[in-house]
Amino acid sequence: MKKILSLFLLLPLMLQAATVKSPNGNIALSFSVDEDGRPVYEMSYKGRPVVLPSHLGLELAQDKHASLGMQEHDLMYGFTVSKEETTTFDETWRPVWGETATIRNHYNELAVTLTQQWLQPMAAKPGEPRRAHRQYNRQMIIRFRVYDDGIGFRYEFPQQNDLNYFLIKEEMTEFAMAGDHTAWWLPGDYDTQEQETQQTKLSEIRGRMKQAVNWTNSSVAVFSPTGVQTSLQMKTDAIDIDGERRNLYINIHEAACADYATMHLELVDAETKALTTKLEGNSNVYTPAPTVGSAAALPKPFTFVSHLTPDATGLKGAMQTPCETPWRTVMVSDDARDMLSSNLILNLNEPCKLEDTSWIHPTKYCGVWWEMIVGKSSWNYTDEFPSIKLDQIDWTKVKPNGRHAANNEKVKRYIDFAAKNGLDEVLVEGWNVGWEDWANMWKRDVFDFVTPYPDFDLKMLNDYAHSKGVKLLMHHETSSSTQNYERHMEKAFQLMNKYGYDAVKTGYVGDIIPRGDHHYSQSMNNHYLYVVKEAAKHHIMVNAHEATRPTGLCRTYPNLVGNESARGTEYEAFGGSRPDHTCILPFTRLQGGPMDFTPGIFVTRLSEWSDNTSWARITIAGSLALYLTMYSPLQMAADLPEHYERFDDAFQFIRDVACDWDDSRYIEAEPADYITVARKAKGTSNWFIGGKCDENGHTAVVKLDFLDKGRKYDCTIYADAPDAHYEKNPQAYTITKKTVKAGQTLKIKEAPGGGFAISLMVR
Amino acid sequence: MKKILSLFLLLPLMLQAATVKSPNGNIALSFSVDEDGRPVYEMSYKGRPVVLPSHLGLELAQDKHASLGMQEHDLMYGFTVSKEETTTFDETWRPVWGETATIRNHYNELAVTLTQQWLQPMAAKPGEPRRAHRQYNRQMIIRFRVYDDGIGFRYEFPQQNDLNYFLIKEEMTEFAMAGDHTAWWLPGDYDTQEQETQQTKLSEIRGRMKQAVNWTNSSVAVFSPTGVQTSLQMKTDAIDIDGERRNLYINIHEAACADYATMHLELVDAETKALTTKLEGNSNVYTPAPTVGSAAALPKPFTFVSHLTPDATGLKGAMQTPCETPWRTVMVSDDARDMLSSNLILNLNEPCKLEDTSWIHPTKYCGVWWEMIVGKSSWNYTDEFPSIKLDQIDWTKVKPNGRHAANNEKVKRYIDFAAKNGLDEVLVEGWNVGWEDWANMWKRDVFDFVTPYPDFDLKMLNDYAHSKGVKLLMHHETSSSTQNYERHMEKAFQLMNKYGYDAVKTGYVGDIIPRGDHHYSQSMNNHYLYVVKEAAKHHIMVNAHEATRPTGLCRTYPNLVGNESARGTEYEAFGGSRPDHTCILPFTRLQGGPMDFTPGIFVTRLSEWSDNTSWARITIAGSLALYLTMYSPLQMAADLPEHYERFDDAFQFIRDVACDWDDSRYIEAEPADYITVARKAKGTSNWFIGGKCDENGHTAVVKLDFLDKGRKYDCTIYADAPDAHYEKNPQAYTITKKTVKAGQTLKIKEAPGGGFAISLMVR
Repeated sequence: MKKILSLFLLLPLMLQAATVKSPNGNIALSFSVDEDGRPVYEMSYKGRPVVLPSHLGLELAQDKHASLGMQEHDLMYGFTVSKEETTTFDETWRPVWGETATIRNHYNELAVTLTQQWLQPMAAKPGEPRRAHRQYNRQMIIRFRVYDDGIGFRYEFPQQNDLNYFLIKEEMTEFAMAGDHTAWWLPGDYDTQEQETQQTKLSEIRGRMKQAVNWTNSSVAVFSPTGVQTSLQMKTDAIDIDGERRNLYINIHEAACADYATMHLELVDAETKALTTKLEGNSNVYTPAPTVGSAAALPKPFTFVSHLTPDATGLKGAMQTPCETPWRTVMVSDDARDMLSSNLILNLNEPCKLEDTSWIHPTKYCGVWWEMIVGKSSWNYTDEFPSIKLDQIDWTKVKPNGRHAANNEKVKRYIDFAAKNGLDEVLVEGWNVGWEDWANMWKRDVFDFVTPYPDFDLKMLNDYAHSKGVKLLMHHETSSSTQNYERHMEKAFQLMNKYGYDAVKTGYVGDIIPRGDHHYSQSMNNHYLYVVKEAAKHHIMVNAHEATRPTGLCRTYPNLVGNESARGTEYEAFGGSRPDHTCILPFTRLQGGPMDFTPGIFVTRLSEWSDNTSWARITIAGSLALYLTMYSPLQMAADLPEHYERFDDAFQFIRDVACDWDDSRYIEAEPADYITVARKAKGTSNWFIGGKCDENGHTAVVKLDFLDKGRKYDCTIYADAPDAHYEKNPQAYTITKKTVKAGQTLKIKEAPGGGFAISLMVR
Repeated sequence: MKKILSLFLLLPLMLQAATVKSPNGNIALSFSVDEDGRPVYEMSYKGRPVVLPSHLGLELAQDKHASLGMQEHDLMYGFTVSKEETTTFDETWRPVWGETATIRNHYNELAVTLTQQWLQPMAAKPGEPRRAHRQYNRQMIIRFRVYDDGIGFRYEFPQQNDLNYFLIKEEMTEFAMAGDHTAWWLPGDYDTQEQETQQTKLSEIRGRMKQAVNWTNSSVAVFSPTGVQTSLQMKTDAIDIDGERRNLYINIHEAACADYATMHLELVDAETKALTTKLEGNSNVYTPAPTVGSAAALPKPFTFVSHLTPDATGLKGAMQTPCETPWRTVMVSDDARDMLSSNLILNLNEPCKLEDTSWIHPTKYCGVWWEMIVGKSSWNYTDEFPSIKLDQIDWTKVKPNGRHAANNEKVKRYIDFAAKNGLDEVLVEGWNVGWEDWANMWKRDVFDFVTPYPDFDLKMLNDYAHSKGVKLLMHHETSSSTQNYERHMEKAFQLMNKYGYDAVKTGYVGDIIPRGDHHYSQSMNNHYLYVVKEAAKHHIMVNAHEATRPTGLCRTYPNLVGNESARGTEYEAFGGSRPDHTCILPFTRLQGGPMDFTPGIFVTRLSEWSDNTSWARITIAGSLALYLTMYSPLQMAADLPEHYERFDDAFQFIRDVACDWDDSRYIEAEPADYITVARKAKGTSNWFIGGKCDENGHTAVVKLDFLDKGRKYDCTIYADAPDAHYEKNPQAYTITKKTVKAGQTLKIKEAPGGGFAISLMVR
């Protein structure tokens, strides 16, 4: 460090600083360069610190190629400010689908151009006694956008001779928190996001890490005892704000992560700096965070440092200028509801790049899925072989196992059900050959995505569905063999076009092939977006499971209608999730884009109809609420048709509910406790309201001040029965019908692990 | 080791042994299982040892996936023989193209089925005091084929419950040589084969390694100070054979390496077993070979152990039964010519899998290439930008650098030249956008393979060529960004079909993207073959440069008409190769398949027409000889048209010479000294003879006993002039015409670094 610093050109030490505020003035962002030439930012809300002074910069990797030259010189120190530009932006745009008909993108921007100059000795030529020095001169722009509900900032690298190609060893963006906040976090992991959320103080993360990891997930790669994922929702202790004792809600995430590695956050504490221990059961050795600067510059007690997902060689990214990082976002408010209504992430993404979006449509669907997840039937067609090779099997001659769900008869049953109940599409998993040994075998050529099992008549079933106004929803489980998927994808999409599919659910279960890569690396993020772009050429909507957590790219490519990227309903069959799980996800996972959570489980005790002893910790009314509280343009009715037929009066809500909206109002919200939201169905005057609570129950108070004045509404309330309980009495609900109008107030009691749903149809 | 051994079931210790001989009885192969249950083979030729008793087996890797179970139990120890089968095979087949019209595949086979059984404790269940044991039972077949000119053997893994999927840590096949032979070797390297061949004793390999490596090659990954590549040509000291003092010629290589890592050989000496040193300048740390067995089982002094090319995680292969390894081959003879005429490698490959091969044709071509290699013109079109992004450039508006070779005018000049001289195709490199920053930048999206530079009129030039009976030869430099190539390949092949290209030269310069992978890994070998198979669907012939060394796969996929995979003519512009280089390659590189060596340099001093001070160490007559001695169905006339026009009488031979043959007779041969071969042009009675020698000169004696009796032949002899010399007088040649008939003998003097070429046209 010393050696490099000594070579920096001695530019006048100007400790430049600039401050920019949000349009409403609540948020202030300050930028400066410290005495080592390190960029520093800090952020406040209503005068209270949100991010304490925190360093910015990137550590670059040495490369074996001389052609990359001296470009591995870190982008961390020795900067001076050569330009500061402040601008204002205000625009309202219309999403193709979303929670509201229009979105306002209003921010004040500060763009700081930083210059880094240094002298470096050149290789001495033969006969040349003295070594000449060459002067290097590089520019990096840090662009801050300050909104009323938070900030976004990113690094930009203009095209330039001294910074052309570079490899990122680590991004060193700090987020110094002002206190020991409560956090809702997932273990930082290169390959899975499907753990239960932990709720602890920041100081308790290290102590909780081991028990936070379920090592039996399909792919686990935890990297640090203090590493967590984003979006990270936090809540401060109560502080004085506007003369009141209030909590601040702070959320760190990222926006527009396209051809760059997904960011994690690592809490830098005293132990982190020395630790080289190995977490039990995990093959990824924790690498200590580099010491950040001199002793004086040691981070504050609760500082997160960015930690990018590596490739197979351990590097974090290969860049070519001009380029930029994703936006790093910090949302803040003293009202938890603002965390949910914020459009910060979407606003920081590029406008839609698809010229024609007419083929993209919100979708309600059911599917041949839950009974396999529960274990009552199988994706695979035969149990005859210890393993299979796709090119060596005559499927017409193999012995069926009798448990294959994706068969003509069953699929027709689902099509009939969808047609009868106004569902748009029917997902069918396990339709294509290869499920006999699809996961975790390091098997590259695992699926071809075009060959159906002999009991799945591709043409007949699509024709049958179309004759009833329903479409089939395609399924492409890649088994994380991305090379195989890319080889077959074009033909797979052509097959979809041929038979009339317009949406695909993709899956990335298991470790990535090529081996050594990770689900959230730069190359995998590039892959996911490549699939979305190629799909768009075929007018295909994409719903990617086990892909990286979304960062708002659905604004730019609205055919990305869904992602999983968190612990979904499937875990109700794998031991279950906590009742507060769905009161956390909207604050965390949903910040970057919709989740295909696959709600709607009515028969929560799986042992009622299967050998599975797992159970869902939710009431039926709670299940209905999820269609509102877990916003998505793609909503599944995940339970079996016969279960819905059993509770047909409750299922009426799923028939009625919209999945695209002109307006949304978050009425009540507290992370891990409750969420109440009202939404206005697209192109109508009808409203739907959902409320979901944790294991403690909740009484929602909904003032109907958003209804059209002077109009009457048919109001149907699907509520927990007084004795309902997520464990003891989950199927007890009441349905109440009445007429309401604007200004009235509804008060609805939610059972433990319960919720409610309301439809308000204009008369 | 001890621990595992103790668990093997105590089967009766039968030290079974079997011996099988070659059809002519000269070669004997013996197989046995030693007291540790390790498979052992040995091999002799005319009673003299070729391979001393050597172990066979594979070390398997631990895998994190429980689903792979106990399958990582090594396939090395504890075997018993459960079946031995001996069979004979004799068949004559016709290659699509080749050195002879028919090839006899005649061998005796020994297939040994080995059984490995052991008990392994099972995980104790709660409340279960004693741990139960489960018995494992695995089969592996080792199949030996014994030919008159050598042996091939491979490991086969039938489908079975206890061996279903496995990861290879290392293949542990030994080749114990009987003495300190002379060897012609290349440094063992995961990414390049373009070094000069070293000629040393086996004991001298370690001492020579450092200077053997040219670290400036585009991609160097040397793995051991005693690691060498195959095909490895060796020569013993003179020994008593058939009552004479003769040398044995021994060659180790492999056949049919498809979805498996390329094999290197590591000489195990005393130092190897302890060394963990790092070769200077190389990022690949040498990992010591595992200790092979107990002290008593230490290998003999000159033992090679197989060393496979790893993937990014260091593992060597992911396998699914049923499967098999490539064939490991040991050729042997006391006549060096048998090394060149052997069809062992082809015979060990599968028969042709293409139903229609009518579109595959031997090809003579010239091309826009040498002037870029020499540095007189450029592949890239502009020097305007420090770097480019394909989707962000309007090529019609960029500033040309004025040096771009692949322009309409120049390409037409080459088409005219090809048409006039009976050449079939014209290669054009640098026709497509992306060459501005194509190599070693870790740039994934480097080429799209469909967009021409603005001065290359794709349609016009193809139309122009076709109007003259010539085709253009496509060029796809992948820059080793294989993911990018696979994404664009289908559209690139469609473009070729549209414009009438039927052959592509592919290139893999630089390090592999995805990072961490290597040119010769299992996944890359799969990629190369994937390209060949996809090309076949489009009736496209493939000539892959910088791909892995061939192993005879061109028998199975004869549209694989060429490979580079060694130091080609381009190195004459990069400092030059030794004069004996082309007298070694047929013994080594060409064993697995033809090389696109791109011979035919007439103006060997590049400074005569460029700023390049490099020079080719060959005479013009020697250059002509290469069209015979370096067998290939794809032959380039690599020099500039104007150079050929300057020596048009010598160029007549290139106009005349065939590149597909009904018969071939190796008349004289000695590694690194000289090669003389006569070949009969396909479908004619014409013969062509070529002789090439090293820096010491040679006098070839050619008895024309292969000509049709009673016929007269117009004989044209292109010979070195008496004062010719590869350095001092390379352009001095004589052309002599006469009439000859069968039985006559020709005696031709070859200059140092020279050679000769003869055409014999039946009257």
